[in-house]
Amino acid sequence: MSEHQTPEPEPRDEGVVDSATETQRQIARLEDSWRRTAAELDNFRKRCAKDVVRAREQERASLLVRWLPVLDNLERALEHASANPDQIVEGVRAVHQQALAILADLGYPRRGDETGKAFDPAHHEAVSTIADEDLVPGTVAHVVQPGYGHDGEILRPASVVVATRSE
Amino acid sequence: MSEHQTPEPEPRDEGVVDSATETQRQIARLEDSWRRTAAELDNFRKRCAKDVVRAREQERASLLVRWLPVLDNLERALEHASANPDQIVEGVRAVHQQALAILADLGYPRRGDETGKAFDPAHHEAVSTIADEDLVPGTVAHVVQPGYGHDGEILRPASVVVATRSE
Repeated sequence: MSEHQTPEPEPRDEGVVDSATETQRQIARLEDSWRRTAAELDNFRKRCAKDVVRAREQERASLLVRWLPVLDNLERALEHASANPDQIVEGVRAVHQQALAILADLGYPRRGDETGKAFDPAHHEAVSTIADEDLVPGTVAHVVQPGYGHDGEILRPASVVVATRSE
Repeated sequence: MSEHQTPEPEPRDEGVVDSATETQRQIARLEDSWRRTAAELDNFRKRCAKDVVRAREQERASLLVRWLPVLDNLERALEHASANPDQIVEGVRAVHQQALAILADLGYPRRGDETGKAFDPAHHEAVSTIADEDLVPGTVAHVVQPGYGHDGEILRPASVVVATRSE
């Protein structure tokens, strides 16, 4: 009775029993499809939770591996420090530049000196204020700690002293 | 899934036509349940891919934020270097310790000196060999670069020179 593939059964006197059987098969097939999709969803949920954990672990390890040369070079600078104390400044300056290059490469460059710029809460964190008639109120008087990141994505705002109106 | 349980059609006196109508309703409900579960699976797949990307970004940012104090302290050590060159060694040593502490805290301690231990490819990477009759062949003659991580999870194996049989 292949004509019963369509969900709409044709009401026929002679086909009632066959139609009922075919309809029951159709229901069984639908239930099976639904159960399998539900099981797939359930498995996928569990797998996704694991994927997220693994992504974090991988990102952590790959990031830390990038930092190891900075540590190696710090160690080397310290090893040579006793033999040649003058060289350590140069060595440490190179390590610092290396660290800045890694951060910039990962999308978070060190922000330049923003002294004199208008205070902007998106990029600056005010740690104190200073009343000075030589400074424009509401501008950055002094950067205590540099910020990192570009305008779209700040990793850390710069810690700044803000100029206020002197009275 | 239980809320979508297939309702058993209740046997009713009204007859074949009502029963057929009820069965068609049952089929429609099942199809609907299946389609909704399939759509949910599809949405979940897309969301999971986004979750993985976001997890990586969050891990990266949170890890880099932890490294910023190391950079701040390197900068500070360099700023004071010209005024007091002797102090920089002490300052850099402190920064190095700080960096090691961060790595250890994240699960990757610096591995101690493994000179004299048996060469182990799980923890060591041989960069060269040395033939020396004072050393036991197959042991670590010298660590060129330290390894990081604990036995279960090595971030980087130590680069070592391996002692070989002298002939």
